[in-house]
Amino acid sequence: MGWGDLGAFGEPSKETPNLDQMAAEGMLFLDFYTASPLCSPSRAALLTGRLPVRNGFYTTNGHARNAYTPQDIVGGIPDSELLLPELLKKAGYTNKIIGKWHLGHRPQFHPLQHGFHEWFGSPNCHFGPYDNRERPNIPLYRDWEMVGRYYEDFKIDLKTGEANLTQLYLQEALDFISKQQSSQQPFFLYWAIDATHAPVYASKQFLGTSQRGLYGDAVREIDDSVGKILKHLQQLGISENTFVFFTSDNGAALISAPTQGGSNGPFLCGKQTTFEGGMREPAIAWWPGHIPAGAVSHQLGSVMDLFSTSLSLAGLQPPSDRQIDGIDLLPVILQGKLIDRPIFYYRGNELMAVRAGLYKAHYWTWSNSWEEHSKGIDFCPGQSVAGVTTHTQEEHTHLPLLFHLGRDPGEKYPLSFASEEYQRAVEHISGLVQQHKATLVPGQPQLNVCDQAVMNWSPPGCEKLGKCLKAPESDPKKCSWPH
Amino acid sequence: MGWGDLGAFGEPSKETPNLDQMAAEGMLFLDFYTASPLCSPSRAALLTGRLPVRNGFYTTNGHARNAYTPQDIVGGIPDSELLLPELLKKAGYTNKIIGKWHLGHRPQFHPLQHGFHEWFGSPNCHFGPYDNRERPNIPLYRDWEMVGRYYEDFKIDLKTGEANLTQLYLQEALDFISKQQSSQQPFFLYWAIDATHAPVYASKQFLGTSQRGLYGDAVREIDDSVGKILKHLQQLGISENTFVFFTSDNGAALISAPTQGGSNGPFLCGKQTTFEGGMREPAIAWWPGHIPAGAVSHQLGSVMDLFSTSLSLAGLQPPSDRQIDGIDLLPVILQGKLIDRPIFYYRGNELMAVRAGLYKAHYWTWSNSWEEHSKGIDFCPGQSVAGVTTHTQEEHTHLPLLFHLGRDPGEKYPLSFASEEYQRAVEHISGLVQQHKATLVPGQPQLNVCDQAVMNWSPPGCEKLGKCLKAPESDPKKCSWPH
Repeated sequence: MGWGDLGAFGEPSKETPNLDQMAAEGMLFLDFYTASPLCSPSRAALLTGRLPVRNGFYTTNGHARNAYTPQDIVGGIPDSELLLPELLKKAGYTNKIIGKWHLGHRPQFHPLQHGFHEWFGSPNCHFGPYDNRERPNIPLYRDWEMVGRYYEDFKIDLKTGEANLTQLYLQEALDFISKQQSSQQPFFLYWAIDATHAPVYASKQFLGTSQRGLYGDAVREIDDSVGKILKHLQQLGISENTFVFFTSDNGAALISAPTQGGSNGPFLCGKQTTFEGGMREPAIAWWPGHIPAGAVSHQLGSVMDLFSTSLSLAGLQPPSDRQIDGIDLLPVILQGKLIDRPIFYYRGNELMAVRAGLYKAHYWTWSNSWEEHSKGIDFCPGQSVAGVTTHTQEEHTHLPLLFHLGRDPGEKYPLSFASEEYQRAVEHISGLVQQHKATLVPGQPQLNVCDQAVMNWSPPGCEKLGKCLKAPESDPKKCSWPH
Repeated sequence: MGWGDLGAFGEPSKETPNLDQMAAEGMLFLDFYTASPLCSPSRAALLTGRLPVRNGFYTTNGHARNAYTPQDIVGGIPDSELLLPELLKKAGYTNKIIGKWHLGHRPQFHPLQHGFHEWFGSPNCHFGPYDNRERPNIPLYRDWEMVGRYYEDFKIDLKTGEANLTQLYLQEALDFISKQQSSQQPFFLYWAIDATHAPVYASKQFLGTSQRGLYGDAVREIDDSVGKILKHLQQLGISENTFVFFTSDNGAALISAPTQGGSNGPFLCGKQTTFEGGMREPAIAWWPGHIPAGAVSHQLGSVMDLFSTSLSLAGLQPPSDRQIDGIDLLPVILQGKLIDRPIFYYRGNELMAVRAGLYKAHYWTWSNSWEEHSKGIDFCPGQSVAGVTTHTQEEHTHLPLLFHLGRDPGEKYPLSFASEEYQRAVEHISGLVQQHKATLVPGQPQLNVCDQAVMNWSPPGCEKLGKCLKAPESDPKKCSWPH
């Protein structure tokens, strides 16, 4: 989902009344970012509070390449990483993940090995359908064991776009919340649904209800579900005791537009890129009785801040034995403060750009290669800014491209290198970069090796279901990351 | 001002609290259009309820060329046109225009000849400063006579961007409203301020207050002024008896971006073009006690509807001796109805595109010529859609380019000519076009002839001020309209 997909963020069909209402009752973040323009690294960052380059969710197979966790990935979240649920567990929280995990699917990476008590969802994207010979269909787990596979037991009709998965995930959420409330247990619910990822789907009751086609139907179903979750909290009388945050893991995938991809509003390009369209996200904090209704914040925020903020809410300190990139947003959310901090835009192993205040300096620019682009893979459809949306990796480390995101949110007008404004801003940002790089200890890259043998052939529980498949022989290779 | 310039429409700095509040208390129109992608024709259409091609505000000097009323224009609003204030006058309304008239500056075109009782403002844009030899500075009128000239008596500091004009126009508005209220007279106020047109300016108190630079300062001053006008109506106790509508006369001038031009949000191109960015506008209706707060409408609306709607509010019938293109929006505004009607996108003498429902068919595409483009004049900076944002006038009358504005508000993905959806939609729209063209009687074009002698050399009242200038000899020529 992209920054421009909600009514509150200017989507012209304005079809998200529940999320808009959530914003009207809470705080709208206009300058909130993911830690990566791609799903897996972004989610790893959210749960660890650390940049993917630290927690291992990147690749060194190529320079500045986006990598994630397809089902032939060998790596996953290292045991050495401390995840938010692991820490919350110590404070008595019950933790549940509903939906896509995406931090590795081999046994050692299982979410219940990393602090979650419960899981309903899948380890990977709902790609498919597969033939179960060359490639198995993606399993869905309930806790430790699989309960079926996408397309087989959890239907997705690619022709009609119908699937009831978001409804299943919604019901899981409502049930979990009810259970926690009745047992008076504090809880952390990570509602990481698959929608609006391609292949896009929606439940029957939402199909054809949006001006925006199937993608809009999916957005409407999410909007409706969020509304139901918030209402549930209110009806249970725990809304003033429950902090809720809504955001996305990367910008809208314009490559899938218009029927399977969303909107990044006025921003440049989309998912896979470190332009604003790739990493700036819709974000709403909700906590009735604590956040003043209708608040708006220009705090530069990050999904990694949800780690630190959640710890703070639970009265916990972040781990002191490692670098945490997230910050505690409570002073922003509760007192309207603005905390000075930069945003680092990474693509794989490279720091592509840095934002400080309203200035954004690009040290590297790249959309995708000419070769990929010539195949019709376009991360910036209809957009082209000379020297900016480049199809070769362009280094600008000596003279970064500088944009003022207030005057030019669309990153179309680089500031003149000769201007005083440029000198001043770049000097400041370059200082931040030096400081950042001087202390950066990259983690062991987890997304380098792929092997057909590790795919979801025989997940735990497959025997009971008669759904075990035979894995091919192990043949580890460098994963290929074209973008 | 463009569709994307208000917080309520997704501008990322979200700096328009008063207009956003106006929307929250009233009705937000998401699909509201001008009648032309340029100022003069759009304003002529607003005041006559008729397309520029009918009321004469177009040129036949070239095909599909935008024309307006610079100070050497010979034409203006014809006497045969019935303007909204002329009609309201008969119902006892007192009518005032504050700001830019733009329907011709020669004596016969004076707004007080066309139904207005009062005027404070200028006949043309605040371009300049001029030397008063080759070209006189633009006069400001109070009613029948000039009271000074821009840059001389009404300062605009182009270096700092400072000018207090919006404050003058605001005070005029507040005073007029007070006067009408105290005399219990119904009134029509056409608050047609010059800001945010280039050269952009703001009052000292707003300079430097926006994230968006000078343009944002100007937007903030407008926002503040609208807030003060609405508050004034409330304080006078007449807000439930006063209908207020906010909109703009064309899309943001991207050619002036980033410091002098605004945002068209997710839409394609800007002012001068018949893409959505050129003609879709922010629009808000406000009438406490009548419009349900927070209403949102997808009614296809037009500035021409303000003519018909205002007549309806005054209990008047639109003239029956001529074609009126505007419709009465009261059923939309008060009862939430949706009225089926197309939007015609004209550029000069050509019907470029038509919208019906969510479909938009382009019969002609053109941004501007290669020649102009090579000079750096770019109506679509950073945007380029092959075969759509063309630099030659491309005719598609036999196979119109069709877009679905719900799935593809940015006009990037033309529908396949072979699809059933295309066939169905184009058949419907082509029927509307045939019907439209069959009954269309173009007016005498008013924007063909230019003459240095008709410039604002000696406006009425210049003697008293010692500000009369000597006109050169008359030398009428075809006006040159490059776009």
